[in-house]
Amino acid sequence: MDTKEIKVMKKILNVNDRIAEELRNELKEKGILFINLMSSPGSGKTTILEKTAEKFGNKICVIEGDIRTTLDAERVSRAGIQAYQINTGPFGGDCHLESGWIKSAIDEIDLSNIEILFVENIGNLVCPAEFDVGAHINAVVLSVTEGEDKPLKYPLAFQNSHLCIISKTDLLPYLDINIENIKENIRKVNPKMKIIEISAKSGEGLNDWKEYLHKSR
Amino acid sequence: MDTKEIKVMKKILNVNDRIAEELRNELKEKGILFINLMSSPGSGKTTILEKTAEKFGNKICVIEGDIRTTLDAERVSRAGIQAYQINTGPFGGDCHLESGWIKSAIDEIDLSNIEILFVENIGNLVCPAEFDVGAHINAVVLSVTEGEDKPLKYPLAFQNSHLCIISKTDLLPYLDINIENIKENIRKVNPKMKIIEISAKSGEGLNDWKEYLHKSR
Repeated sequence: MDTKEIKVMKKILNVNDRIAEELRNELKEKGILFINLMSSPGSGKTTILEKTAEKFGNKICVIEGDIRTTLDAERVSRAGIQAYQINTGPFGGDCHLESGWIKSAIDEIDLSNIEILFVENIGNLVCPAEFDVGAHINAVVLSVTEGEDKPLKYPLAFQNSHLCIISKTDLLPYLDINIENIKENIRKVNPKMKIIEISAKSGEGLNDWKEYLHKSR
Repeated sequence: MDTKEIKVMKKILNVNDRIAEELRNELKEKGILFINLMSSPGSGKTTILEKTAEKFGNKICVIEGDIRTTLDAERVSRAGIQAYQINTGPFGGDCHLESGWIKSAIDEIDLSNIEILFVENIGNLVCPAEFDVGAHINAVVLSVTEGEDKPLKYPLAFQNSHLCIISKTDLLPYLDINIENIKENIRKVNPKMKIIEISAKSGEGLNDWKEYLHKSR
């Protein structure tokens, strides 16, 4: 009977989920908070990380996931953050990161002074949400320019996240978008979602974000 | 020798590509232009289709691809277009459309008065570009809010497209974005790309788009 139960466990915990769980525990033991940032392309993830670096400096580390280019790692590196670039392009152009990629990256990173580890996942509001990378917090970034209906159309990214950062709020005066409708649609698919509104350009909401990070550590 | 060659052909033309090729020929024979619109979520595909309806009215038909909701089909339907919604959510939440979905949709659509058939693919700048849906023209829509570097970071969608619509150009005055850099990056990955700049809000470029459609028929 015991044997049968173990077999079921093995089936449920596939390789990706097993590595993810090990990573989550390993980083927790080291006192490092691990946040997985997901979003559509161009929602402002990298800019938010640049702004985060101004507050946390060398205490944060970013693993950048992109199909091609090291542009994002170069950007956050210039902001004074330890950065590591994963390019999936040469390996079939994977549209998401999996926990094995993160484990390999972490093995090469000096985490001794790191308090927060970010993964900036590949810009894609669909596939990354299907794969546990081992983060303590999954955060989805949604730019106000993307429209009010995205949480309803791409529910998994919102259902599988703890936090939603609504970005580029400085553009609201120029859009036919009501931010209250965005928030209502987020809560329709995930009533417990923590929501932070941010404009990296004007600085609005950056203190809320930094406070959230402090409290979550 | 002949037999061997046929075997190779079968291997190269997989099921998706075979159905796509059949669709492309079938629609060409019927005098229907088939355009596949791809982009990140929220780039403005549906709004462009609403504006296209003002010019072409009941001569166009739209197949909407979404993981969940019939919101887009309802929107284009209100604009007077014959619309058909594919939801991949109940079938595993596929992140892209394949030619088989389009074939099934076309079997249910009255194409007798249609001159242009659009597929609005699932909002995802990665995966849809990997799958031939049988279109005569693949068009990628890129909103200026997404940043200058997207063609470099997501090259396949740009390499596999004939046309790039740069959308939401009315927002340029409020962004730190130079549209010339976007165009330069597009041409780096696809030197032959036809580019049309559109603001559905101000109407800029809509005549270029309609002229392009007229010429392409």
